[in-house]
Amino acid sequence: MSKFSWTILKTSKKNKARIGKITTPHGDIETPAFIFCATKAALKSFTTKDAKNNNTQIILSNTYHLMLQPGSNLISKHGGLHKFIGWNGPMLTDSGGFQIFSLGYGSVADEIKGRKTNSKIRKTVININEEGAIFKSYIDGSSILLTPEKSIEVQRDLGADLIVVFDECTPFNVDKNYTYKSMLRSHRWAHRSINAFNSKLKYQSKQGSAGLQEIYGIIQGGIYSDLRLESIYFNQNKINTFGIAIGGSLGSSKEEMKEVVNFTASKLNNIQPVHLLGIGDPIDIWTFVEQGIDTFDCVSPTRLARHGSALVKGKKGKINLKNRKYKEKLSPIDNECLCYTCKNFTLSYLYHLFASQELLALQLLTNHNIFFMNNLMETIRTAIKEDNYENKKKEWLEN
Amino acid sequence: MSKFSWTILKTSKKNKARIGKITTPHGDIETPAFIFCATKAALKSFTTKDAKNNNTQIILSNTYHLMLQPGSNLISKHGGLHKFIGWNGPMLTDSGGFQIFSLGYGSVADEIKGRKTNSKIRKTVININEEGAIFKSYIDGSSILLTPEKSIEVQRDLGADLIVVFDECTPFNVDKNYTYKSMLRSHRWAHRSINAFNSKLKYQSKQGSAGLQEIYGIIQGGIYSDLRLESIYFNQNKINTFGIAIGGSLGSSKEEMKEVVNFTASKLNNIQPVHLLGIGDPIDIWTFVEQGIDTFDCVSPTRLARHGSALVKGKKGKINLKNRKYKEKLSPIDNECLCYTCKNFTLSYLYHLFASQELLALQLLTNHNIFFMNNLMETIRTAIKEDNYENKKKEWLEN
Repeated sequence: MSKFSWTILKTSKKNKARIGKITTPHGDIETPAFIFCATKAALKSFTTKDAKNNNTQIILSNTYHLMLQPGSNLISKHGGLHKFIGWNGPMLTDSGGFQIFSLGYGSVADEIKGRKTNSKIRKTVININEEGAIFKSYIDGSSILLTPEKSIEVQRDLGADLIVVFDECTPFNVDKNYTYKSMLRSHRWAHRSINAFNSKLKYQSKQGSAGLQEIYGIIQGGIYSDLRLESIYFNQNKINTFGIAIGGSLGSSKEEMKEVVNFTASKLNNIQPVHLLGIGDPIDIWTFVEQGIDTFDCVSPTRLARHGSALVKGKKGKINLKNRKYKEKLSPIDNECLCYTCKNFTLSYLYHLFASQELLALQLLTNHNIFFMNNLMETIRTAIKEDNYENKKKEWLEN
Repeated sequence: MSKFSWTILKTSKKNKARIGKITTPHGDIETPAFIFCATKAALKSFTTKDAKNNNTQIILSNTYHLMLQPGSNLISKHGGLHKFIGWNGPMLTDSGGFQIFSLGYGSVADEIKGRKTNSKIRKTVININEEGAIFKSYIDGSSILLTPEKSIEVQRDLGADLIVVFDECTPFNVDKNYTYKSMLRSHRWAHRSINAFNSKLKYQSKQGSAGLQEIYGIIQGGIYSDLRLESIYFNQNKINTFGIAIGGSLGSSKEEMKEVVNFTASKLNNIQPVHLLGIGDPIDIWTFVEQGIDTFDCVSPTRLARHGSALVKGKKGKINLKNRKYKEKLSPIDNECLCYTCKNFTLSYLYHLFASQELLALQLLTNHNIFFMNNLMETIRTAIKEDNYENKKKEWLEN
């Protein structure tokens, strides 16, 4: 009956890296896969058509932004997000929790990677209690209550294939006691999210516009191994979800993040597809695929493009096209890259576009970065398939 | 030998409207045609690939902007503008004169349509004398001398198929005496431009990078019929150019513009293709095609898009997508339009993109406006072909 399935096609002999397939009503996702962020129902300077043409498999939109503007009801009237944004492939929406707790504080990446101080983190959150979170709308300043039930209702309206339970995203510098209590509350919220998700009435009434959906749980526990273990146990035994995501704080440094993710991933069974929230650095992706992570999402590829950075192979990972040294470079970003931008334009032209503030710069660079990420994931899948992961990883990072 | 030709395929029975074909080394232009402005070597928020996919035949870039940034020498090193911007179709560059005299004053359209006062018009021009014009660079404030010879040299470097003689674009509110003297000087500059253009040495030295080119003369004379007649005589008898453009001031009102263009066009022979500089309003295009104008250019379709206006049929000609009345409209800009934007997105979605300041808004609207203009020109060509101009014009404007 279900239009959803998850199949592991092959697991690497030397580590936990695996290739798999997530089937959704809007098509298959070959994993490991990267999910691009169409936060406010747009990939910023890029069309969904071009995303498809650059081998994108799946995109996500943010419940928090869309419930405020233009409102999920209006998107439901369109027949759901897929029709609203002209994307016929798989989609995911988050639960809104992540943004409520991180917006006003810094970027999503800053939040989970702990790059900034925490002084402003609560500025958009007015109150958190058992019921949900009351926050201030960034559109008009009004107070809005978001509960697990409300989050699921909004996500039903939006109609993405994959949706996520409502949680509090704990910041990196709260103490263990707060993290523990928050985790337990997020577990209770997960139960309520799933109850709302399974509510036959809502399900049927929305099915016409939004289609079938499946839900992901989220593992909390911050940087504390015992809490992570407890949350893994909860997610794998106390609730029944299609997929599982690793969320919450991953620590305050890259080293700590690596430890937390490695520990958490190592304790998971292999029954569900595993998503790692908010990570998009190619080096991290190579690392965490080895731990059995199947999907990643991050604003970084498109955000970096808008700031003038092109993703490249190698440990450095990116180059800044606004650098004057590219003014007269007649070669493309990457001679071997097969994207539209690299096949048609020089670094000199891209430098010129940024220097003369032409919007086309953002679009061409987004094109390269999206193609790059999809190419990275394809290289990873092929490496797993051919039992050649270590070599391919080395080749990529030492390019 | 020549890779260029101009053929009139059919002239309307009831007026001077005609369909024709301009052949260039980079392909044919079916006329009447619209030329889109890639001012600084970019169509702002649009790729040349998408321009092509939306039936664009020819684009232009501006000598003035490109000589300042990034410099024509660098573009020549790329093998010319075509390679620099990834466009393999016909191209035109202007001479730079138009921008020198209108920049710092207002938009090109404002200038020729006389919509603003003239107080600031000379602010970027330091001095005009027989030699040329000394102007202040908008990039770094340095003084730059642009002469007919220099303009042609730069246009050789840029390597567009069609280039234009250097002229002074007289503003609308100078007196007849100034307009007359300016016209005579522009005629002398036209001689010098053509001499430079014909210089065997320069020609051969640049041919490798820039390919073959042909040149347009410009008819001056402001709003004065006797001066227009004198300039027409000069252009048709004293110099030998591939094409002819109607330039200079077209008056201070739409009525005056119509009179000036109608008078000028009516006195031309049919030997050369005729370009009308800076006009892009669909109503004006319907009007002036009847007078035998073959090509038009204007920044308006792409500029209107960036300001939130979609071109539509009818006398009003455009709608503002930022208007709140579109917030919940589930229909596209135009139900019958076959462009990517209209086939995939609602007015409600486009409104949302503008409301949430997503850059994609500009791209999707540019897509519609470019498709719209090319569709307009195709409708016009078909109407001429089928001897059905009056009906089709009425149908379009009364839509």
